[in-house]
Amino acid sequence: MARIVMKFGGTSMAGTERIRRVANIVRRQQAAGDSVAVVVSAMAGETDRLVNFCREANAMYDPAEYDVVVASGEQVTSGLLALTLQSLGCKARSWLGWQMPIATIEAHAKARVDTIDASALVAAMDAGEIAVIPGFQGVSSDWRITTLGRGGSDTSAVAVAAAIGADRCDIYTDVDGVYTTDPRIVAKARKLKAVTYEEMLELASVGAKVLQTRSVGLAMKEGVRVQVLSSFIDEDSPSADDLPGTMIVSEAEMEQILEDGEMERQHVTGIAHDKNEAKIILTRVPDKPGAVAHIFEPLANASINVDMIIQNVGRDKGETDVTFTVPQTDLARAQALLEDQRSAIGFNRIITDSKIAKISVVGVGMKSHAGVAATMFKALADRGINIQAITTSEIKVSVMIDEDETELAVRVLHTAYGLDASDEAA
Amino acid sequence: MARIVMKFGGTSMAGTERIRRVANIVRRQQAAGDSVAVVVSAMAGETDRLVNFCREANAMYDPAEYDVVVASGEQVTSGLLALTLQSLGCKARSWLGWQMPIATIEAHAKARVDTIDASALVAAMDAGEIAVIPGFQGVSSDWRITTLGRGGSDTSAVAVAAAIGADRCDIYTDVDGVYTTDPRIVAKARKLKAVTYEEMLELASVGAKVLQTRSVGLAMKEGVRVQVLSSFIDEDSPSADDLPGTMIVSEAEMEQILEDGEMERQHVTGIAHDKNEAKIILTRVPDKPGAVAHIFEPLANASINVDMIIQNVGRDKGETDVTFTVPQTDLARAQALLEDQRSAIGFNRIITDSKIAKISVVGVGMKSHAGVAATMFKALADRGINIQAITTSEIKVSVMIDEDETELAVRVLHTAYGLDASDEAA
Repeated sequence: MARIVMKFGGTSMAGTERIRRVANIVRRQQAAGDSVAVVVSAMAGETDRLVNFCREANAMYDPAEYDVVVASGEQVTSGLLALTLQSLGCKARSWLGWQMPIATIEAHAKARVDTIDASALVAAMDAGEIAVIPGFQGVSSDWRITTLGRGGSDTSAVAVAAAIGADRCDIYTDVDGVYTTDPRIVAKARKLKAVTYEEMLELASVGAKVLQTRSVGLAMKEGVRVQVLSSFIDEDSPSADDLPGTMIVSEAEMEQILEDGEMERQHVTGIAHDKNEAKIILTRVPDKPGAVAHIFEPLANASINVDMIIQNVGRDKGETDVTFTVPQTDLARAQALLEDQRSAIGFNRIITDSKIAKISVVGVGMKSHAGVAATMFKALADRGINIQAITTSEIKVSVMIDEDETELAVRVLHTAYGLDASDEAA
Repeated sequence: MARIVMKFGGTSMAGTERIRRVANIVRRQQAAGDSVAVVVSAMAGETDRLVNFCREANAMYDPAEYDVVVASGEQVTSGLLALTLQSLGCKARSWLGWQMPIATIEAHAKARVDTIDASALVAAMDAGEIAVIPGFQGVSSDWRITTLGRGGSDTSAVAVAAAIGADRCDIYTDVDGVYTTDPRIVAKARKLKAVTYEEMLELASVGAKVLQTRSVGLAMKEGVRVQVLSSFIDEDSPSADDLPGTMIVSEAEMEQILEDGEMERQHVTGIAHDKNEAKIILTRVPDKPGAVAHIFEPLANASINVDMIIQNVGRDKGETDVTFTVPQTDLARAQALLEDQRSAIGFNRIITDSKIAKISVVGVGMKSHAGVAATMFKALADRGINIQAITTSEIKVSVMIDEDETELAVRVLHTAYGLDASDEAA
C-alpha cells in the first residue's frame, strides 16, 4: 500500500460539480489500494475575492488578520470535499492547518512551513480514512492562522508528503505535465516523462509556471517525488499510477530512468521564456570600488530581486554603464530607490526597458557536455536575434533579447537542440 | 470603565462599506471609555450560500464537516472588522472560537457553549485592544470546529459577555428594540424601555423574533444584562449608553426601574403572535390509559415539539378527539409517525390544519393580578373571534385562533390591555 498525496488547484475545486469530479478521482486512487491525503486550493476566484475585501477594509492591511480572512477559502473547499467523499461512501475528514498542526515560521501572509505533526493524520489514513487538507494555511507559534503566499498550496502538498513519508505527491493541474517548452509557442513541444528538481527549479523560475517554485525547492530538500498531471481526466482515464504525467525526481532516480531506457538522454531538457523582467541601464557610473554596492544594496534591502547584471565599458575612461534586470512589478520602486541614491552612485542617466525577454535553455545534461552555450548563440545569430546579455549556471544558459523576438527564439532553439517531436501526433 | 459586548448581525456586516459603519459605532463605544468586545455574524446571505454548498456536496451531510464550511463566514467578517478598526486607528484583533477557546458540548451544527477561557481576551481588552469574535462558532473537546445553530451569534455574544463579566451585552439588530407588539400590525405599538428575561423568553418563543430564544435563556441563567438596539444609527446618534433601546433584565432590576418611575407598571407587557404552528386532530381515540402516550412518545423521540394539547369529549362514550399543535415544518413528519402508530393509538382519522395562529399575552405583572385571561377571552369574544384552544403559564396566556384573524386579534388585545401609545408620535 502506497501513501499518496494528491493536490487539486482552484479550477478543479470551482463549485460542487467539479468537487464531485475530484472526489471520484480521489476515490479511484484509494480503490487502487493506496492510502490517500488530498490537499486543496480555494475555489477559483475566491482568494481574489477575499484579498479584495481585505484591501477595501484596510489598504495597509495587518497580515495576521489578512490570513484569517483569506485562509477561509481553503477551509470551505476542504470541508466540501470531505462531505462529497462521504457521499461516495468513503471515510473522510478535513484537517485544518491548526488541527494537524502545520506549524509555520516567519511572517504572516508569506509564512514558511516549519514542522508538521502528522501522527494523528497518519493514524487516520492507515485506518482507511481519506485526509483532506486545506492548502495555503498553517498556524504560528502564538496560535494564529498563517498563510504561505499565493500559490502556497503546492508547497502545502509537498510539505505534507514529506511529513507522512509519501511515496508520491501528485499535483493535478491545468496542464498535463512539463513540456520541453510552451506548447502554445511550439506545436512540436514534447511532454517530458521526467525532469530533475534542479531542472524544474530553473524552468519554474524562468516562467514555466506549472508549480510554485518554492514547492519544487522543498521537494528537492525533502526528497519528495512529485508528479505533475492533468486534472482534466474522467472516470475512464487510467489511474494516476499509469497516467502519462511528468515526474520530478532526484538526479539519481533520473539516472535510473535513463538506464532503464525509458527516456533518451538529452543535453538540453527544456526551453523557458520569461517576459516579466525589465531592464535598467545606469549610464556613466564612476568605475571605482563601492559604486556597484551603492546600486544593489538598496534594492536588496527593498527585497527587489536583481537577475542579470552586465557592466559595459563606457565611452570615457573611468566610467562604465551598468545594466541589470528586475521584475517588471518592481520597476517603478527600483527607479525611485536609484534616484534617491543618485549622488551616492554618481550615474548620469537611468534608462529603462520593459520590452525584453529572457530565454533559457535548461538541462542537467549540459553539466557533462560542452558546447551547449555555443549552439545557442549560433542558432540565435543565424536568425539575426541580438543577444543583449548572458547569464549561465551549471544547468542553464540564459540570454536577454528583444521581447518581440521571444517566440521566434524559442522555436529556433527548440529545433536546434533536437527537441522537436518526431511527428505531429506526438 | 465598563466592559461592553457589542453584537452585529449579518445585515450590518454585509460588505466592507457596512463593516466600516459598524467599526465607527464600535470605535465610538471605546472612545466613550469602555473596554469593548465585538461579536459578528457572517455577511447576510453568506451562511445560506455555504449551507447550500454542503447540501449540494452531500444531502445527508456530516455535521462536523458542515461546521468546517459554515463557520468560515464569521471567520471572514471577524478578520475584516479587525482590519477596518485598525484602519480607523484602533488596536484590534480577531479571536476565533478555537483560539479563545469557546469550548462547546453536544452535537455539531447545534452545539452548546460549555466554558469560555477568556483570560487572554480580557488581558488584551484591558490593554486597550478591541476583541473581535466570530459568532456562531466554538470548538469541541476533540478540537474540531462546532457551530451553535442558526442565529447562534446572539448566544455567542451573551456567552462571551458572561465569560468576561461584561456590564452589558448590546445586540444591534434590524429593529430598534422590543415592542409591545409587532409595529407592522399595530401602529400604536410602543417600544418597551425594559422587559424581564422571562417575558422576553415568552415573547421570543411565540414569534417576536428579535433575539434567538436560547440567548435569552443563557442571559437569564448568567445574569447578563442585554440591550436590544438599532444598528441603523450613524455618527451623530447618541452613544449606546443613551440610545433608547430595550433592556432585558432580571425581575429585581425591573422592580428598581419601576420604583425609579422610569416605567409604568402594566399587567401585560406585550402581545405576541405565531403563525408557524399547525394543528393536528386525531378523532375517536379510545379513552383508555396509555393511548395519549402512544401519540406523544413517538413525536418526542423524533424531537417534534408539541405545544398546545386539548382533549375534546367525543360523540361516543369511551372515545375522545385529541387536538395538538406542532411546528408547521414538522407537520408532514408528525403525520407519518402517527400513521405508523395508527393501530397502537387506535384513532379514526387524522385532520390537519396549518391555517391557525397562536396569540399570547405576556407579562410578569399578571402573576400578582387576576383577570388577565378573562379580559382576553371577553375582548376576543366581543369581536366574534373563536378560541380553539387555550394554554397558560405563570406570565402568559395563549389562545389558538383562525390564522385569518391574527391581526384583528392582536389589535383588539393591544387596546384591551391599555398598551396603545397615547398619541401617534409615541
